[in-house]
Parts: sequence; structure tokens; C-alpha cells
Amino acid sequence: MNIHGTPTRTIRPLPGRGGVEIIDQTLLPHLLAFRILHTLEDVAEAIAIMQVRGAPLIGATAAYGVALALAEDASESRLEYACGRLLATRPTAVNLRWALERMHDCLAPLPATQRQEAAWAEAAALCDGDVMLNQSIGRHGMELIRWRHELSPRTVNIMTHCNAGWLATVDWGTALAPVYAAFDTGIPVHVWVSETRPRNQGAALTAWELAQHGVPHTVVADNAAGHLMQHGQVDLVIVGADRAASNGDVANKVGTYLKALAAHDNGVPFYVAVPGPTIDWRLADGSGIPIEERPASEVTHIQGEAEAGNVMSVRLTPVQSVAANPAFDVTPARLITGLITERGVCPATRQGLTNLHSEAGASDSRTA
Amino acid sequence: MNIHGTPTRTIRPLPGRGGVEIIDQTLLPHLLAFRILHTLEDVAEAIAIMQVRGAPLIGATAAYGVALALAEDASESRLEYACGRLLATRPTAVNLRWALERMHDCLAPLPATQRQEAAWAEAAALCDGDVMLNQSIGRHGMELIRWRHELSPRTVNIMTHCNAGWLATVDWGTALAPVYAAFDTGIPVHVWVSETRPRNQGAALTAWELAQHGVPHTVVADNAAGHLMQHGQVDLVIVGADRAASNGDVANKVGTYLKALAAHDNGVPFYVAVPGPTIDWRLADGSGIPIEERPASEVTHIQGEAEAGNVMSVRLTPVQSVAANPAFDVTPARLITGLITERGVCPATRQGLTNLHSEAGASDSRTA
Repeated sequence: MNIHGTPTRTIRPLPGRGGVEIIDQTLLPHLLAFRILHTLEDVAEAIAIMQVRGAPLIGATAAYGVALALAEDASESRLEYACGRLLATRPTAVNLRWALERMHDCLAPLPATQRQEAAWAEAAALCDGDVMLNQSIGRHGMELIRWRHELSPRTVNIMTHCNAGWLATVDWGTALAPVYAAFDTGIPVHVWVSETRPRNQGAALTAWELAQHGVPHTVVADNAAGHLMQHGQVDLVIVGADRAASNGDVANKVGTYLKALAAHDNGVPFYVAVPGPTIDWRLADGSGIPIEERPASEVTHIQGEAEAGNVMSVRLTPVQSVAANPAFDVTPARLITGLITERGVCPATRQGLTNLHSEAGASDSRTA
Repeated sequence: MNIHGTPTRTIRPLPGRGGVEIIDQTLLPHLLAFRILHTLEDVAEAIAIMQVRGAPLIGATAAYGVALALAEDASESRLEYACGRLLATRPTAVNLRWALERMHDCLAPLPATQRQEAAWAEAAALCDGDVMLNQSIGRHGMELIRWRHELSPRTVNIMTHCNAGWLATVDWGTALAPVYAAFDTGIPVHVWVSETRPRNQGAALTAWELAQHGVPHTVVADNAAGHLMQHGQVDLVIVGADRAASNGDVANKVGTYLKALAAHDNGVPFYVAVPGPTIDWRLADGSGIPIEERPASEVTHIQGEAEAGNVMSVRLTPVQSVAANPAFDVTPARLITGLITERGVCPATRQGLTNLHSEAGASDSRTA
């Protein structure tokens, strides 16, 4: 996607393999700042404190984390350690496990002398693969938007939640890829951006990247989603996913389930963009997806830009009050109109997913 | 309710009728500050900028606004002007109209010389009436909590939304009155306080007053409501109302509808506390309730306490992004388990309401 007019990816290896450059997403939308990750620990920290976030980008960053970890020691024990260290950073997004297993499967059989070279190549290939998946999701999802536009030739109002855009992936996004594709094709679109408390990835990240690309959008409180749907102001909902179970249940940012309920109650189509690496074939349904509990301080405090221009944190709650912060929820497949995958749109059912991913569905159900 | 150990109301007339003292609720939970309203314009402003808010307290404050308006001119035209000015401050809560009609009906027939005296007396009576209604709601609602506790003798987890507590009324609250009554009786309760973006009345006001009274509670993002209900962590939901239509549809703070959907989907009882003055008998259903659109700045900015102790506002969104801010939504009666009124708990139906309010239901349906 274009940032200040230049095609840009969210992550890039530096020449000479001394590091990987990322955007520090904790400072957006107030400040566009880059950070260079030099070591395995840098990568683990960047994922844990959410300088990079979004299931696909977590996977891509972890892949480079393995490459960085092997810089001085490419032994098998170092490889095992790096994969274990990175896997422990965030529990919910399955792309992390997928990326680490891919790196491990590629590197473990090689002699130690070849591992570093291969790790950088595999991480780059994984990133290129992410971009291609997202472009395919964009094409398939755009057809849903086009169809809605042809049904009634006015601006198509799309609601999303959290950030499953460019910033959540290597490029283009998952849920927002169809929006960018439609916009670039000339279909008039407008996006309802739910702010996505507590970390406000909607208000901070989705709004920022839509603004960068020139896509019309309006930020609303998460609470407003139902009211907008009741009043016919939402034509379809597209969200991303951190993990889809093999039956089509989907874990995504907390609050997704509430939007799915409102969409269902108002006959608004509700789609989830799910690239292959986000499907956990080992899980029969969403009940087995681990839900991350994040720090209470994300609820009690919030970061913003003061009038003087400095980015700072303020307390929202009484000092005597405790807070809880489950970061994801599971939307049952029955509330999902369809899954937008890189291979097409399918029903949120085991049959729907295995029709598109027959190889994975068959092999993993044997090992489950 | 006790504040720092002293029984306190949220509004009180000053001796000598020179003004009315309120709590400036825009500064809570960081600062407990009082403000004296001297004139009609003071009152109109305090309601409009939400220094006082909550349907019952808006009505009570407006009643005193009429009394203050008549200080120097108790003519009929001044009375009309005052009622019109106050009615225009906030559109959704019907208690405002109810209080102004009550003041008007009491004062208009009197000679001008008697109006001022009568206005202060009527406003005081209206406030005393609010306290009694809320105590009755507390008693009836407590039985629901007690029943749940007897079913399984452990802490009863109650979820609420926004603030329909002491601060929203003259005393005790509507939705929180049953919680206080249960707590004071010794039934173990715990309240899930949804923060209620964009103005955070949950995180700021409900959490503060529960802490003042010593009631165990946990603040969560609005988005977490569905996840908590999916995992059996909510035994019942009790919310307030800004206006109930005669069929049991209820307008309340935006996001209430999403909680009602989640409660319905998970078999969690969903109750709405509705005192008589909150029922709009002229409306056949909720579609006619005007929904206030408040300033976008409530979404783009948020107020909190900086580390240095000063209360300040920070920007959350990119400067290029616009925001929308519908402040209420309508929860259809089909999602409501029951209405907790001062006359008992009833189904959210026209029949249920008219069984308890036969006089009002009959007279107003004729004038509708």
C-alpha cells in the first residue's frame, strides 16, 4: 500500500541481514516511527508489547525472529529455543504457530551451516506468500462489494472491527483488502471504523491507513454498531480473524461476536477474511481456542495525543477499581455469512473449508 | 447513598433559594467537585454539557431550573419560555418532558405571586418522589438477585451498562438500586461495569459510586460483554432507560442493544429498570424515540487523569478522520426478560406495563 505515495510493506529485512525494520504501531496514528529489530529478544518484545500485531504480521515477524536468532548460533538447540521463545509471546493467533512450524520444518533438516541463509530466504518467501494471499482475498471479497453495489448503485457501507488491514499483514490486509480493491476499482465505498477498545486499533490504525489511502471512513464507538445496523447504515461487515477452527468458528478481537449478533439480528451479511495460515485444522470448534487475557492497564488507561502534541497516557477509571481485559472472543460459525479465503468465498462450515483446502483438511484431521 | 460516610443526594436546593447545588459529573472519577446553578441558563447548560445526566436527574434538575427561572419574573410567558428552553437541552430522556409538564401543570393555573413558592415545593416533591420510586425499584429488583443467589449460593455477577446509579438519579439509582439493596442485605454481589464509550459513564461514574459504597466490581471494555456471557460469568444484566415505549421497547445508552443481544444468545436474564416517569405512553413502540447525535469530539478525544494529577483531554484518532456519535440505541422488547418498576417486575409488553400502570396506560393511549 502507498504511504506518503510510496508502495510500502509493514516489515522489511535490512540489507546485510543485520536487522528487520518494522513500524512501531503503538505510536500510530500520532506518529509514524520505525524500529529496527536486531535480535530474537527484540522480536519477542515487539510482538509481546504489540509494536507489531495482527495475526499475519505476527507470523511474518516471528519468521524473521528465527532468522535473527540464528545469526551467531545456527544449532538445532538454538532453533528449538527460538521457536519456543517466539511461540510464547502471544497465545491466540495461530499464524504464529504456523509460521514457526514452517520455519522449523524448513530449517531443522538442513546442516547448521546452511540454516542462516535458508532462514532469511524462507522468511522472505513467507512474507511474499502473505502478500499474495491477501491480494487473492481482496479479489474475492471485492466481488461481494461489487455485487452489493450492483444491487443498489450507491455508496457501499462496510463495517469493520479492530485492524485487519495493511498494518496487520505484510501488505494489503485481510478484511481491508477487499475494501482497497473495490476502492481502487472505482466502486464507491465508505467504512464504519469501530474504535475497538481497549487498544483502539480501529480508531488508531484502521482509520489511519484508510486515511493514507484516501478511503472515506467514519470512526464510531464500538457501542454504536448495533444502532447503525438497525438503521440500515451498514451493507456488510468484514472482519479479520486470529484463528479459525475447522468448523468455521472464528476467534477475533474482542467485540467481534457482538457485531456478528447485531448483523444477524438485522440481516446484514457478516464476512470473515480467513487466509489459509489462520485456519487451525487441529481444532474441531472454537471452544479450544486460547483467549489471551491482557493487562488491566489497557482498560484503566488510554494513550492519546495531548494538545501540545506529545503522546501520553491518561487514567480513565477510579484508582480503587480493578479491570479485566479478555482480548479476543469467539464468533460461532452460525452467525457468519461466509469466509473470504484466498481460494474463494465459502460457508463457515467444515465442509466449506475442506472444499477449498482439501489437502490441509484431510491431512490435519488425521493428525488431530 | 453515602459519600465519604455521609448520606448525600446528587442535587440539593440551597437555603434561601439562591441556587441549586449539583456534582459536576464531567470531572468524576478524578475529582468530586460541586457547582451551584443560579439561573435558568446555568441549569440548561449543566444539562446540555452533561454536568448532570441520567434521565431521572435530568428531570429533577430541570424542575429546579423552572423554579430558578421564576425568581424575578413569574409570569406565564416566563414559565412557557423556561419549559421550552429546558426541553430543548436533551432529546432522548422522556423524564425531562415529564418533569417539565408536571411543573407546568402545577404552576400555570396559579396566580403569578404564588408560582415561585409553589415551584420550589414542587421541585422538592419531585425529587422526594424520585427517591421513593428508586427505593421501590431496589426492593423489587433485589428479589431477582436474591432468587439467583438462592438458586446457587455464590456471588451473583451482575452486568450493567452506562450509569443508572445514584449519580443518574436524586438518590439510589434505578438499575443500581437493586444492587445496593442486595449488597446492604448481605447478598454477595459483583458488578461487571462496562466502560460505556464514548463518554465512559461506566468506567467513570458507575465504578466510582460502587467503590464509594464498597460494592465489588470490575471494569471491562464494552466489547468484552459477549465473551463474559459466553463463559458463564454473568448471571443477570440490569440496565437503566432513558425512555420506554408503551410496548416495552427501551431507549438507553448506545450499546445497550448489543448487550441485550448477547444476553439473549446466552440465556442470561436481561432486565431494564424503568420508573414510571421514564415510560412514554404516547409512543406505540421504540421507533419513535428521538436518538440524540452528540458531538464527534466525544469519540475523537477522551478525558482522563495524567500522571501529574491534572485532568486533561487527549486525541485518539487521526486528524483526517471524521467520527459519528449516536448516543442511544433502542432495545426491542423481545430481548428484554422483564422491566423492574416501582410497582413490581413485569414483562416488557404493553399488557405488562398497563397491568401495573392502568391509570396512565388508559389515559395516555386515548390522547396518543
